Amino acid sequence: MHTVLESKTKTVIIGDDAPFVMIGEKINPSGRKKLGAEMAEGNFERVRKDAIAQVACGARMLDVNAGYPMGDEPAMLTEAIRVVQSVVDVPLCVDSSVFEALEAALAVYQGKALVNSVTGEDERLELVLPLVKKYNAAVIGIANDETGISMDPEIRLSIAEKIVQRAADYGIPPENVVIDPLALTVAADPLAIQITLETIRLIRQNLGVNMTCGAGNTSFGLPNRAPLTASYLAMAMSAGLTSAITDAMNDTIRMGVMASDVMLGHDAYAVNWIADFRAKQKQGNR
Amino acid sequence: MHTVLESKTKTVIIGDDAPFVMIGEKINPSGRKKLGAEMAEGNFERVRKDAIAQVACGARMLDVNAGYPMGDEPAMLTEAIRVVQSVVDVPLCVDSSVFEALEAALAVYQGKALVNSVTGEDERLELVLPLVKKYNAAVIGIANDETGISMDPEIRLSIAEKIVQRAADYGIPPENVVIDPLALTVAADPLAIQITLETIRLIRQNLGVNMTCGAGNTSFGLPNRAPLTASYLAMAMSAGLTSAITDAMNDTIRMGVMASDVMLGHDAYAVNWIADFRAKQKQGNR
Repeated sequence: MHTVLESKTKTVIIGDDAPFVMIGEKINPSGRKKLGAEMAEGNFERVRKDAIAQVACGARMLDVNAGYPMGDEPAMLTEAIRVVQSVVDVPLCVDSSVFEALEAALAVYQGKALVNSVTGEDERLELVLPLVKKYNAAVIGIANDETGISMDPEIRLSIAEKIVQRAADYGIPPENVVIDPLALTVAADPLAIQITLETIRLIRQNLGVNMTCGAGNTSFGLPNRAPLTASYLAMAMSAGLTSAITDAMNDTIRMGVMASDVMLGHDAYAVNWIADFRAKQKQGNR
Repeated sequence: MHTVLESKTKTVIIGDDAPFVMIGEKINPSGRKKLGAEMAEGNFERVRKDAIAQVACGARMLDVNAGYPMGDEPAMLTEAIRVVQSVVDVPLCVDSSVFEALEAALAVYQGKALVNSVTGEDERLELVLPLVKKYNAAVIGIANDETGISMDPEIRLSIAEKIVQRAADYGIPPENVVIDPLALTVAADPLAIQITLETIRLIRQNLGVNMTCGAGNTSFGLPNRAPLTASYLAMAMSAGLTSAITDAMNDTIRMGVMASDVMLGHDAYAVNWIADFRAKQKQGNR
């Protein structure tokens, strides 16, 4: 199944027979107070720089979030989307839990966006899905609902099924629904990732839709996080994860994802891997 | 299922609820002409150094191979086993395709060895399994037979089943059989690793035995091999691989394996990961 996202002129395809899509995570004020304060003051210089830097490192999409306490999120998110689209030509995740912010940002977005996100809660589905349909966008559906986050992969699957069905009711085809199977912090629960991997396998087998997740959560709270996140991504990719919101600027993570594409046959005969190796040799970075 | 291996005084357990066992691959003349020539001349200084260095880097077992054109393999392997057991106290893989070499080396080995290896060929099974039983050793059973290497995971499974059954006929319990699902070179066939991963899943589900493989094969022929091998190992571990013969001295591979143990809950609360991080901080290696 292919999920097609578009910027002004470029198309990105998320799919289980295509290279993994890294969605740059940096433009997000959570954990970056300074960025949030600047955005609230109307200063988008850091947003601009982060957008350019992430795409230069190989991010094929960018997540854009403007959540900041007391900030005017609809205005901030709209401006962030405008600024990012003025400097890079990649499809964006329009990321907010505030409906008005999604609504305002989608109105200015040029192309086909990935809306981040809707949960399996009835109220959220009824609010967000008509907006997704209106803008012919795709949407990330998170596998939790009114009852919270289940640690039972079968329940996460059933919530994913509900989201895909509800989307269909609104005329949104399954290829425009990207499920987040929920990757929690392994430092808090040693079984957290086993549960995520089993959820990914079940969704792949039963729904066949594309999946994404916030990869950094998995290593939260631990030292030397990059190799942990990279190992998680290799495992999740082999189970069926087809994209992730992650730190595309970290070389360990980036190389891990590229290596996993080679191993899974999504970079046949290692064409991209070898090209990257040669480019680095030329730059004298090795 | 637990496969128990022993050196003179130490025990190592391979199991799907235990940390992954890295078996150091260095003591092997294939691709190391100089090592082979030295061993043939009775000079085991490099063998001694490589044994110490690999264990220092975290190899919990070592593979010992003495195959060298025109070399007296039974004598060379026997001496290599003696030398290695005199400097490190970890269980060994006694590695030869020559029956007489396995026979001679097992006679001097102190502890419970892992015999590397037997295939699913009737003739090899009839030759090697009685020897494994005689020394109460464990054995690596490679999932190919007279018909060669199949690219069908179901056929590899059926050969693994045959090896486990034939071992049982000789009084060798399944926990003393470690199956090699065969990890081939992805540069030669983009589907090679997908086939290996599916074989691992099938063997885990249907036989439940431990598995090992030569991890380096997967990235053979490609540049910057370590991240490729590390990604393969993360995927294979999540599918059910419980040990590998690999380059334990490569930090990318070693960290990848440790990270995968954390992610799979085999290093609960990242106790080993954090201890390793702190040890490196103390050494000022970071």
